[in-house]
Amino acid sequence: MLGADASSRLEACGLAPRDAAIVVHHLAQADAAGKHGHGLGRIPWLEGLLGTAVDPAGQPERLERTEGFERWHGRGALGYLTLDAVCESLLADPPAHARLVVCEACFPTGVLGAWARRLAGAGLVAVVTATSPRRLPHPSGGAPLTGTNPIAIAVPSSDGRPFVADVSMGAVTHGDVLSGAAVPEDLVPFGGAQAHKAFALAAGVELLVGALAGPAHSAVVVAARPEHDPVPAFRALASGRRLPGDA
Amino acid sequence: MLGADASSRLEACGLAPRDAAIVVHHLAQADAAGKHGHGLGRIPWLEGLLGTAVDPAGQPERLERTEGFERWHGRGALGYLTLDAVCESLLADPPAHARLVVCEACFPTGVLGAWARRLAGAGLVAVVTATSPRRLPHPSGGAPLTGTNPIAIAVPSSDGRPFVADVSMGAVTHGDVLSGAAVPEDLVPFGGAQAHKAFALAAGVELLVGALAGPAHSAVVVAARPEHDPVPAFRALASGRRLPGDA
Repeated sequence: MLGADASSRLEACGLAPRDAAIVVHHLAQADAAGKHGHGLGRIPWLEGLLGTAVDPAGQPERLERTEGFERWHGRGALGYLTLDAVCESLLADPPAHARLVVCEACFPTGVLGAWARRLAGAGLVAVVTATSPRRLPHPSGGAPLTGTNPIAIAVPSSDGRPFVADVSMGAVTHGDVLSGAAVPEDLVPFGGAQAHKAFALAAGVELLVGALAGPAHSAVVVAARPEHDPVPAFRALASGRRLPGDA
Repeated sequence: MLGADASSRLEACGLAPRDAAIVVHHLAQADAAGKHGHGLGRIPWLEGLLGTAVDPAGQPERLERTEGFERWHGRGALGYLTLDAVCESLLADPPAHARLVVCEACFPTGVLGAWARRLAGAGLVAVVTATSPRRLPHPSGGAPLTGTNPIAIAVPSSDGRPFVADVSMGAVTHGDVLSGAAVPEDLVPFGGAQAHKAFALAAGVELLVGALAGPAHSAVVVAARPEHDPVPAFRALASGRRLPGDA
């Protein structure tokens, strides 16, 4: 699908052109990074959401702001729009030291590493995490208890190449299951015999985000100003081995 | 080893009785939780540190404090003492919303989940992470690039049983290697075929903490006031399955 077609289809669902452009930019960027499960192929799914769970006219609202804390509510908007607005807000007025941002009712969030990368590209250390529909069971079995609940960590670098880790706690993605590349039984915490570790992190994110933002799928961002520049030395130590987030 | 013997030995190295008591309490608590690699068996190793890399008279110093941010320096003290002081500071004057605490030169840190649990026991959501000696190589091999870099997440609960995840990124612990329970080649990022995920998190912690605190082994704590109480419902959904941090 071409970006222009995608924009037209989202606008036909009632999304303002500016908002459609934000969403399409995020999806196209995911495709370019090879993350097709978060790419333009999501348009039909988003068309379904825009008629039901999501308000095409919804605009995220910043409810509270101090130097160290912001609270946002998605107000029915697509989560991409909330995270875009949060990044804009952080970059327009970055923290002197650190700020935690709670984004209540923020779904879908797309590629968390892309939001973290944007903050790191502008000089901030960033952690982004989010809850999503429950898909991962306890390692001993049973019903799904947590979302795939990724953790993204991005760190700026004076060499112009930020470090970006973006780790889902699932052994496969929900997109893999939808596309037939994996079966539903594969959608468990990653780690095989040590899946209890990925489950612990998935449950930790579930409850951390839940405690701060509530039961709706939500996101939490931490942005901080770095005092040091460890990435170039780390790249040198890695002697050319590929690091997370490298092209 | 008995706690009293451990205290005497630490005091013989020059540690003040109050500081020795803090360290011994942490080690004994680790033993009680079955984490013997962080328990009283560490005393001989600590005796070695106290004569060399660690100043027995060192006292952590809070360099900066705002509502949303604190910066500490270990000033040569054992990391346990810095994290103890940081917990005391957070609990004496908790954030209205959220605070990020950078703890520069903070080693050893012991069981990160124990510090997070202490904050959660007093009603704060807590994330604690730290760097430590490089032990984990890239999944494709080579020299060690990161510490085992655990992430601990604790969430208070109205049922009096906080949730506490505490996940090291290593497939085994350094203690397992020292005790002969594992061979050095086992000390790699966990996850087997998906070890790249644990490596990405380990490298993310390495660089996040490094960017905020610098090249010495250091810790970062995020503490926030919860607005919701998701743990009891999560326990119910888990239908009695053991959750991270449960006894």
